Parts: sequence; structure tokens; C-alpha cells
Amino acid sequence: MKPLALTMGDPAGIGGELTLRAWQALHRDGPCFVALDDPDRLAALAPEVPINLVLAPEAASAVFATALPVLPIELAAPPQPGHPDKANARAVIASIERAARLCLSGEAGGMVTNPINKAALYDAGFAYPGHTEFLAELTGAHGRQIMMLASPDLRVVPVTVHASLSRSIAMLTTDAIVAAAQTTAAALQRDFGIARPRLAIAGLNPHAGEQGALGDEETTIIGPAIAALRAAGIDVSGPWSPDTMFTATARSRYDAAICMYHDQALIPLKTLDMDRGVNVTLGLPIVRTSPDHGTAYDIAGKGVANPASLIAAIELAALLATRRA
Amino acid sequence: MKPLALTMGDPAGIGGELTLRAWQALHRDGPCFVALDDPDRLAALAPEVPINLVLAPEAASAVFATALPVLPIELAAPPQPGHPDKANARAVIASIERAARLCLSGEAGGMVTNPINKAALYDAGFAYPGHTEFLAELTGAHGRQIMMLASPDLRVVPVTVHASLSRSIAMLTTDAIVAAAQTTAAALQRDFGIARPRLAIAGLNPHAGEQGALGDEETTIIGPAIAALRAAGIDVSGPWSPDTMFTATARSRYDAAICMYHDQALIPLKTLDMDRGVNVTLGLPIVRTSPDHGTAYDIAGKGVANPASLIAAIELAALLATRRA
Repeated sequence: MKPLALTMGDPAGIGGELTLRAWQALHRDGPCFVALDDPDRLAALAPEVPINLVLAPEAASAVFATALPVLPIELAAPPQPGHPDKANARAVIASIERAARLCLSGEAGGMVTNPINKAALYDAGFAYPGHTEFLAELTGAHGRQIMMLASPDLRVVPVTVHASLSRSIAMLTTDAIVAAAQTTAAALQRDFGIARPRLAIAGLNPHAGEQGALGDEETTIIGPAIAALRAAGIDVSGPWSPDTMFTATARSRYDAAICMYHDQALIPLKTLDMDRGVNVTLGLPIVRTSPDHGTAYDIAGKGVANPASLIAAIELAALLATRRA
Repeated sequence: MKPLALTMGDPAGIGGELTLRAWQALHRDGPCFVALDDPDRLAALAPEVPINLVLAPEAASAVFATALPVLPIELAAPPQPGHPDKANARAVIASIERAARLCLSGEAGGMVTNPINKAALYDAGFAYPGHTEFLAELTGAHGRQIMMLASPDLRVVPVTVHASLSRSIAMLTTDAIVAAAQTTAAALQRDFGIARPRLAIAGLNPHAGEQGALGDEETTIIGPAIAALRAAGIDVSGPWSPDTMFTATARSRYDAAICMYHDQALIPLKTLDMDRGVNVTLGLPIVRTSPDHGTAYDIAGKGVANPASLIAAIELAALLATRRA
């Protein structure tokens, strides 16, 4: 398998220390990755971790067991943990662009992104809600990308994401549900090795609307999406009552839950397994995962950040990349 | 402790068989309860369970170890599992009224209600959204009642309950949050034995609104409620990001979560522990709990219904009644 490309993320956040800890956890057995990062700042974070500069991912495999391979991207200013610096915005963006290009060219098997702070990137021309939209643009997949959160217990795909709850309800359409479910079914087949994926479609309202007594979106929006997906030959069920569809018994009956809003997806995922949730972008021509947390400025530089989600993101990216290859 | 009063619920649902199984599980060690039910229909469901008719709860304790004490309430028609019959509506309502009166008079320590089907009761004059409002009316507590869901892992109180998600958002007010939190804090002190209850107030929007970027209810509605509760001397925190407030670590920091809508409360509760959730009505002058499921017509009469939630409801009612006594 080709090495994975791991981006820098916001150098004032916890990304650097997580990269170092992920290498410590994985260097014996892999999967192999190359950090697209500033070697000086990594060395300053953990002088005990050996670093090996590489010019291309192909050189990473040979050194990975003994040193963290770093494809250097120079920062403009020494990062201060917890204090984002706009001077470093170009380097943060370059790390993402470089990783995407390495994936498109086939030099990297997939990419894993450390968390960024969008606000710190706006002045440098980053005009996207987040990584996902930026990568969709870079890879020519704009409009098809969708986020899956995957943990050992549960896979969820929120149809609406970063909007207020009111706006999420207003944004919900039959087309959006159908598109999310189709992209999910295709990804489960191609990348997760599930021959005939079973999708559970959530209701929006308590008790999935109770035959209209508690809301009608199940009838007017979600029901037609289920009918269209069935007509397209996809194995879907629902709309399910949101409160009972994430129990162990219910989860055994589907491969992914298509959720109507952010917290309907994220509450059960994080309640079941806070530390090992991985964000997977579906609908891109490349493999991309990321840890399910932010820059965590409050603990950056203190050496206490938990690398479990980044490690899970690297492992899942490797699995997906292997299946694609 | 005084015996608990257990209502009949819809005789076409699973209530009867659960009552019998709860007695089988509890008759050796208690807690003691008396079923306000039709003895003939109970005998027909499980001829092997000995039944002992009683005229008042006080007679129940002496027989509970060897027979299910039944305070008879006659049905008008023999119930057919799965097929509600309006002819029996009066008996269903009478069972609830009788239990409430026994609690008010002090003859019963508290009441536990089996699930009803409201639609089957409307013609008999039952004009309430459910048990909770009916009991608030019967006990003179109307407007103060609120539902708590309690399991071994989590206690949640939804501020808005049985309305569509859109309407729940529209119904959310600072006053409703303050009232729910005050009732919860008082109940945790009086009934749950927690001297200084810690309440976690949930946000409404993803990431609790991200400083207004993802919705403003945290600023305009929830924040003022938190300030008012603090001013009243209640230990509250929040508004918390809904997706991370139900992890094991987060749960260790509060005694109950005040939630903004039905599924925000019910998804984590049922995901963590589907079978042992108990519904507790707070704000009543009497103790009342109920299992966290419905009439389950699809499995009624088949002997497969799980009595875990009813048993947990009986055990919790006994605990609360003991603390009050």
C-alpha cells in the first residue's frame, strides 16, 4: 500500500503532538504515513522522536519503522500553542493542497487531515466552510461530498450539517436525502467492502412523527426519499423513530444510518464511543479521513491530547485505500 | 413502606403480562405492589401465577410473597391482545384514578403506570396528551409536571416533549427552561437524595451554536435561563454542545441533563440503556413512574415482552417513596 499523507492542521492546535504520538503508536506495524509539516516545529514539540525528511511519499516506507517521515512545509512564524497566527495560514493550506495532489497523482494512498481553524485561514483566501468543501473543489467533486462519522459501533451520515437546528430542518429535502444515501451506499460497497449495504433512514420528529401527529416531514420529505431509493435498488428502511434506532439491537440491522441533522448523528456516535470516531469524506475521488475533534487550543502544547481518534483515522484511511487499490 | 399501586394500562397491550412477570421477579424480595386490574384477564394470561384479591393496598404486603395482590377493576369486555376496545376505556381510566387517590390518601406509597393508548380513551372523556397531564390534573399540580427519564447511566429532562421538532424549537422559552430545571433540582434533592444537584443545560444547536454562527437560541433563550438559575442558587452549567455532553466523562459531572427537545434527551438515554429507562413524573405531590415503552400491540399476548423497564420503574418508585416517607 502507498503511504498516507497526513496534513499539518493548525500549528497552534494539537495536530503536531498527535502526529508525533500517532507515529509512536504505529511505527512498528503501520500503517505508514508521511507528515506534510514543518520539521522544526515537530522537533521542538518532541525532541525524542526521530524525524527523517523525505522528498516524496515513496521514500516514507523505508524509514517509517525508525523515524517519522516528514515532507517539509515551512511555517512563516514559530507557532505558539493556543494562539493561531495568520502568518502561517499559507503553510496550513499548502499542506492540504499538497496532500490532495499526492492522492490524485497516486503517490499517496489517501490523506488524513489534522484539525484546522477556518477563521485563521480566511485572510489567506480560504473561503470554504471546512476541509470537506475545499477538498471537493480541489478534486473536482464539488456537490457530491458528504461526511460520514464512523466508529467501531456505528456509522452515521448527517444529511444537513453545520447550520442551526432551525435551518437544518428548513434545508432538508428529498433530493438531499436521496443523494446522501446513494453516495453512502456506493462508498460502503467500494471502500468498506459491503456487497449489499443496508441503510437505515432516520425520521426527523419524535417517534418519526407518529403518523403526522408530531410533524409531517416523514410523510412529505423522508418517505418519498425512501421510495426513490428503493426504486433505485438500494436496501433502505425507515423512517425510524430517532430515539430507538441506535440501540445495539437496532444497529445490528443496518450498515449506516442516514440522519436528518448534525446532533441526531453525532449524539449517538459520541455517546457510544467518544474517542474513536473518525470523519470520512464520501463522494471524493480520493480517500480522506480526519479525527473527530477540533484544534483544542485549551490543551494544545501540554502533551495531554488523546491521539485515539487520529490513530483511528489513519487506520481507517489505510483500510479504505487498500480496498480501493 | 406502603405498597405501590400498579395500573392496568391498555388491556390489549403488554401491560398485563408485564405485571405478572414483574411479580414473578419481585415477589421474594419486593418491592411490594398491588395491581389495579381485572383478575380474570390476568388469570387468563398466566394461569400459573397465584392471584389474591385485596380490598385495599394495606392487605397486599401480607400476601405479596405468595400471590399477586389484585385490587379488582372489572373490564367491560374480554381484551383481545393487539386490538384495543373502547368498551374498556372506563376501566382503564378508573385504574389510573384509583391509583392516584390511593397515593394522595397515603394508602399507597406511589404509583406505577402501565402504558395506555390515548386514542382508545378519547371517547370515554380522556382529553389529555397522556398520563402525566391527567395525573397533574387529578393531583392539582397542573402546569408544574415534567418528565424525567432515568436509567442507571443517565437522567434527562426534556423541556419540550411531544411536538414536532419545528414546534419544539418554537415553543422553547427561558421560562420553560428555568421551570424545568427548578422542578428537577427540587426533585433530585427531595426524592433522589442529592443534597446539591448539579444540572447540565444542553444547547439547542450543533456545537451549542458556535458563538452564534450556528444559531442564536443559546444566547437569546438558554443563556438567560442559566443566569436566572444561578441567581436562584442552583448549580447549573452550560449551554453544552449536545453531541459531547453524554459521554461517560461528561456524565460524571452532572446529576441530570436539561434537554431542549425530545430526541436530544431520548437518543442518548435509549442508546446507552434501551431496557432499563424509567419515566418519572416530577412536580407532582405523589410519586409516579412508568416504563419507557408503549402498548406494543405487535407483540401483546405472545409472552415475549421484556419486563425490565417495568421492573426498573417499580424499583425506582419504591426508592423515591421511601425517601419521601
